[in-house]
Amino acid sequence: MLEEGKVQVYTGNGKGKTTAALGLAVRSLCAGNKVVIGQFIKGMDYSELKLPDHFDRLSLEQFGRDCFVYRKPTDQDYQLASRGLEKMRAYLQDPSIDLLIFDEINVACEYKLIDPREVVEMIKKRPKTMEVVLTGRYAPQEFIDLADLVTEMKEIKHYYKQQGLKARLGIEY
Amino acid sequence: MLEEGKVQVYTGNGKGKTTAALGLAVRSLCAGNKVVIGQFIKGMDYSELKLPDHFDRLSLEQFGRDCFVYRKPTDQDYQLASRGLEKMRAYLQDPSIDLLIFDEINVACEYKLIDPREVVEMIKKRPKTMEVVLTGRYAPQEFIDLADLVTEMKEIKHYYKQQGLKARLGIEY
Repeated sequence: MLEEGKVQVYTGNGKGKTTAALGLAVRSLCAGNKVVIGQFIKGMDYSELKLPDHFDRLSLEQFGRDCFVYRKPTDQDYQLASRGLEKMRAYLQDPSIDLLIFDEINVACEYKLIDPREVVEMIKKRPKTMEVVLTGRYAPQEFIDLADLVTEMKEIKHYYKQQGLKARLGIEY
Repeated sequence: MLEEGKVQVYTGNGKGKTTAALGLAVRSLCAGNKVVIGQFIKGMDYSELKLPDHFDRLSLEQFGRDCFVYRKPTDQDYQLASRGLEKMRAYLQDPSIDLLIFDEINVACEYKLIDPREVVEMIKKRPKTMEVVLTGRYAPQEFIDLADLVTEMKEIKHYYKQQGLKARLGIEY
């Protein structure tokens, strides 16, 4: 258990945001901590969905469907995001959780599925031992202001877009 | 197994480089791949050393000692880095490995423990199905040129340095 949990933001247009959150999750699990990952926007069959098979103290939930990012939000997207946020609100009140990851929450805010001010208020009231991670492009200013640590993952070179390749199993998803 | 392995570089002064490599490792493991992580410079008791307990198809080795970064390299550092590089050369010839991570190799190059041109030559000769990841600040130009993907982790806010706090178990190590 941490003495004092911090708030971390991984943002930017480069690869490695969700990946770094996953890495932090497993490092924390290896240290004996309890970790919950909530993935907004996402409802795809990512490899990482199998991660809880390897760690007793990890839960992973998805609050989205298919490949949201490239289309206009529908009522269902709003409902899924909103239900996801309520679940995260409950986790934020559970002092047994050491690390709580809001994956792609920044994108959910950018698309107005979620109000970042509501998230900030929830996070501020969490048990003081809980570390919180917020990921995704377009981190809202409210999250930057709240955070103790912000890393921008900046794309310098990217074959996935530049060379028009498809996402690869076990690497991108 | 990948059809065509790429070369990825995670560099920059921000948090999340080794962490993203760990995340990629577990995602790849969840997809059934075989992964080897070689950590240069490092010889500390990081939480992630326990990761192979959770995954049969993962090996993790350290080719350094203690906290190298803040002191001048000694003969022992050169020897450890050089022995590490020979091990990685062998892994680079093993077609059963899907993902090979050279953690902190960039720093080892910056400190002249390793010649980046030698690493580039080794990587170029690898089986074409193998993905390679190179991490650490100060990525040498040779690695940037070789890479298909380069992400710069850029520090926007960092409590660890700015607030003078100690590294925390399960988060920073």
